[in-house]
Amino acid sequence: MTPDRYTIDFQPVGRRGECKEGESLLDCARRFSIGINSVCGGAGTCGNCKIRVLSGTVSAATSQEREFLSVQEIKKGWRLACQAFPHGDIKLEIPPESLSTPQRTQVEGLVVTAHPLPPVDSYHLKIAEPSLADLRGDADRLLATLNKQAALPCEFIDFGVMRGLSDNLRALNWECQATVRGKEVVAIGPFPGAELGFAVDLGTTKIAGYLLDLKDGRPLASLGITNPQVSYGDDIISRMTFALGSPENARQIQQAVIDALNGMVEKLCTVAHVKSTEILEAVVVGNTAMHHLFLGLPVHQLSRSPFVPAVSSALDVKASNLGLNIATGAYVHLLPNIAGFVGADHVAALLAVKPWRFRGAVITIDIGTNTEVSLAKDGAITAVSCASGPAFEGGHISYGMRATPGAIERVRIEGNSVQYQTINGTPPAGICGSGILDALAQMYLTSAIDERGRMVESHPRVCAGEKGLAFLLAERGDEKPIVITQQDVRELQLAKAAMRTGIQSLLEAQHIEEHDVRHIIVAGAFGSYIDIASAVTVGMLPSLPLNRFRQVGNAAGTGARLALISLKQRKVAQSIAGRARYLELASVPGFMQILAQATYLGEYRIKDGKRVKV
Amino acid sequence: MTPDRYTIDFQPVGRRGECKEGESLLDCARRFSIGINSVCGGAGTCGNCKIRVLSGTVSAATSQEREFLSVQEIKKGWRLACQAFPHGDIKLEIPPESLSTPQRTQVEGLVVTAHPLPPVDSYHLKIAEPSLADLRGDADRLLATLNKQAALPCEFIDFGVMRGLSDNLRALNWECQATVRGKEVVAIGPFPGAELGFAVDLGTTKIAGYLLDLKDGRPLASLGITNPQVSYGDDIISRMTFALGSPENARQIQQAVIDALNGMVEKLCTVAHVKSTEILEAVVVGNTAMHHLFLGLPVHQLSRSPFVPAVSSALDVKASNLGLNIATGAYVHLLPNIAGFVGADHVAALLAVKPWRFRGAVITIDIGTNTEVSLAKDGAITAVSCASGPAFEGGHISYGMRATPGAIERVRIEGNSVQYQTINGTPPAGICGSGILDALAQMYLTSAIDERGRMVESHPRVCAGEKGLAFLLAERGDEKPIVITQQDVRELQLAKAAMRTGIQSLLEAQHIEEHDVRHIIVAGAFGSYIDIASAVTVGMLPSLPLNRFRQVGNAAGTGARLALISLKQRKVAQSIAGRARYLELASVPGFMQILAQATYLGEYRIKDGKRVKV
Repeated sequence: MTPDRYTIDFQPVGRRGECKEGESLLDCARRFSIGINSVCGGAGTCGNCKIRVLSGTVSAATSQEREFLSVQEIKKGWRLACQAFPHGDIKLEIPPESLSTPQRTQVEGLVVTAHPLPPVDSYHLKIAEPSLADLRGDADRLLATLNKQAALPCEFIDFGVMRGLSDNLRALNWECQATVRGKEVVAIGPFPGAELGFAVDLGTTKIAGYLLDLKDGRPLASLGITNPQVSYGDDIISRMTFALGSPENARQIQQAVIDALNGMVEKLCTVAHVKSTEILEAVVVGNTAMHHLFLGLPVHQLSRSPFVPAVSSALDVKASNLGLNIATGAYVHLLPNIAGFVGADHVAALLAVKPWRFRGAVITIDIGTNTEVSLAKDGAITAVSCASGPAFEGGHISYGMRATPGAIERVRIEGNSVQYQTINGTPPAGICGSGILDALAQMYLTSAIDERGRMVESHPRVCAGEKGLAFLLAERGDEKPIVITQQDVRELQLAKAAMRTGIQSLLEAQHIEEHDVRHIIVAGAFGSYIDIASAVTVGMLPSLPLNRFRQVGNAAGTGARLALISLKQRKVAQSIAGRARYLELASVPGFMQILAQATYLGEYRIKDGKRVKV
Repeated sequence: MTPDRYTIDFQPVGRRGECKEGESLLDCARRFSIGINSVCGGAGTCGNCKIRVLSGTVSAATSQEREFLSVQEIKKGWRLACQAFPHGDIKLEIPPESLSTPQRTQVEGLVVTAHPLPPVDSYHLKIAEPSLADLRGDADRLLATLNKQAALPCEFIDFGVMRGLSDNLRALNWECQATVRGKEVVAIGPFPGAELGFAVDLGTTKIAGYLLDLKDGRPLASLGITNPQVSYGDDIISRMTFALGSPENARQIQQAVIDALNGMVEKLCTVAHVKSTEILEAVVVGNTAMHHLFLGLPVHQLSRSPFVPAVSSALDVKASNLGLNIATGAYVHLLPNIAGFVGADHVAALLAVKPWRFRGAVITIDIGTNTEVSLAKDGAITAVSCASGPAFEGGHISYGMRATPGAIERVRIEGNSVQYQTINGTPPAGICGSGILDALAQMYLTSAIDERGRMVESHPRVCAGEKGLAFLLAERGDEKPIVITQQDVRELQLAKAAMRTGIQSLLEAQHIEEHDVRHIIVAGAFGSYIDIASAVTVGMLPSLPLNRFRQVGNAAGTGARLALISLKQRKVAQSIAGRARYLELASVPGFMQILAQATYLGEYRIKDGKRVKV
């Protein structure tokens, strides 16, 4: 008998493929690089991987599935992809809230203004052909010509470049362009267009990639995608846990991101009408866990106290060593990490923001699944990391979803009436970060919740739901209405409290008064879409005049671009990492008090662990 | 009374055993399967079984011994093993020219005497554990401790080493040995024994490998094997042709030698009771084609005029890049090539011989499938390459075979009688290089062939064979006798003429008279087994007093070992390659005339393209 292998048709992705024996629908989707949300990594405990079987039979629903799905839903074909195994050919639909692609990713950032000082230089060479009177090796001949012509002390040639050199020089009729990095030739070309660089902000959830002209920093193309590692877990802890499972797991989760970057390179090059082999340098920034998983560095020591990185300093790694398809001898530069939970992405954000340019105390907050906050004053930098969690990215929220079409992104409540806006204007499918924050602020302002976050039963839009009280956000005809539950509010309080605690702990530790903070720079994709007024209203950010806030978009991506085009900027980054002091939140006196106060909604100051309404 | 039984310690074989009463040293050696040369079978008439008594007393020298040994030599302990009987415990040394090992690959060479200046240094480190107060990355922590403790400017860590570092440091409880090469950490260990190095002489036909202690150059184990690339072709031209067939071919022929070296590493480590991961550096020398095929460098330009290498200078390549299983971050150093057909192996041979140490003109000839000859005088070095072919390695010869048991390795002809010695004394299966050369000389001396190489029909052992005249070398009962055919003689004439032409062309080009050559250094496996007198008799080598010749064994292997343990020796090698001028044989005026004259047998000088008998 042949083994049970069935064809799975994934909609709306439009991908078809055979599942392997004993493979869940989630595993099968992963194998085909179809991103299905999964926070718990396939344990059946998060309920994120909801899919709907349109035709064909699958295994019976498990008790885990019944936790997340009603009998009616199961009847309609709804299942958890991690729990369902095909019993025949299957056609299934991945709803937008379960699909981790495509989505709105912040790739725009500050304008790069640094004067370029690229890590590589290219020289046009006309090389004398070998003859019986001149029998030098091809490599020696190239180096001699290069050093003479450009007055360089170039000493060696990348081994991969050397392997292709003899044939290349002859094909190019002894006229070529040699790209030099330090004392090494890293590429031989003609590079008919620009000399290209590739900058990457490798976020936990999103990846932003930029193709630049190294000579002037001019952007040629940019692209945002979902980090495919999302299918191994939403947060860095679950991904590290997966990687620690086996060396094969670690390799697999590394390969996922390498493949994604290679795909990105291909797309960017198509847009810019260039070849990937003309990319002569890359810079990748990410938090310490993303940095380690990308490089295949061990994460065991990073996942347990005292949470130290395998390496903090900046690194230059051969792209070929990582399997990144750019110029043969090109390097990937990794900016330095500050500590286990404040990584190169925050260094990059600080490099873009340069908070020391401003007078007085400056806070830079890079909001994401993991939020980094730093306080700069008089040249000193102190940084903390807050586990803000995925709530503001739609995780752990009943109708939460990523910022994809159909997501409610803006909310206004006036009395009994709720106004909302969805991405692309399509019917509401759920609610994304900026919408959730608006909703929370509006619910507080209209007294649907009190300052402790308790639902006010008397509010006309608060009703009894399956799991206690809930706020009715959007009715959807026959479909279940979109609500925000009491539990959702609790999740959001924890998330926003984590961020506020980071800010306040830094101020406490540095003995700085809240009102002495001159600038609060809000960075990150979510950070650039939110309504700052809403963030202040719920107490996520301190109550300061709105003109002290500045939303700078993807500052980490901007920093990556600066480092890509300028060796000087890399030195600045090194100096930032060297200067920055990591503050362990739990070590701040009164930390627990601060955290307790920060869960409150409303505008207030926190001083000496006490909350003062403003 | 107990019989007189003494312990005999055979060096450098490292074998010990008891001799029987009345047993000569030769008989004792044979009983322990230690091959000592002996053509006359112990009659004391060939002088081949020379050994040296290092300690203990033996019987008085016989009159036969005085035939072959000077009074001074006997005083120094030199004896014929067949004539000497122990009178107590004995320690003796079998010199390379007397040793006939089963797989007779020459791995012994000159004694390495250079003062070691190893490319790597190891430091024992006790590293402070990370804590909440000290969150530096593991790599940064290691580098800081290392640089502080050893006052180094070590800047980075091999990426492979870094990948294992975090787990390693914890497993070792923060106490380790760090091996530094330049500004890079290439290994983390404990290296309980020596710091090891691996030197390789990568010959066209044979590979010699040595495991050394890097700190003092002490050999720990050595091994000779056949180059598995032999199955892709006997000579470098056919191997390059194979590699040019397709990229897959090139990869395959490279992998063959990598696999062989990995097998060699394993065996050497087993013998020395060490781990391959403790090998911290390797040096590989080979001719330019072997060098290129080993590195996976292109050979197209090397196989057509003007025959230039992809690279001439010395190279440092990561062992991991080549798939060589030694320490993770270790490098393989490749000595420089001189030209397309004078490679790093000749540089290594010259490094071992150091011909500029001698007064006057010195010729170094490294005999192999490809023979390199160089002439050094007043600091200048000129080198040629001769395609001597595989005839003297048994190739293209009717009964030719490699130097394995059963091969005739020594021949004496007196009138109608032929005496021969086979390797291990087993019945004759064929004839190997040194035997072929002896036979050719003896045939000429006994007028079985004339100076033109024509068989003399009237000679009692010349008979009509299947393909014309043939010399009857060994009858074998029912089996076909071993013969040397007219065609064989022609092949040998071509081979020896190639070598002689190399020597003479160098002399002509440098305007040096033959008799002004002070030393002829004969290197290479074949070169160290041949009877120099035979080589002079057939006109392979110039007719000079025998004391001007010196057989130095595997000089390329010795040079590889010198370069392995000393950075200073690598500089010398670089200077040799920089100084050496390649002479294209075909460009020497009168080259064809010299070649024509050099095919003649007999002792003669060649001057101005004319042959003068001596």
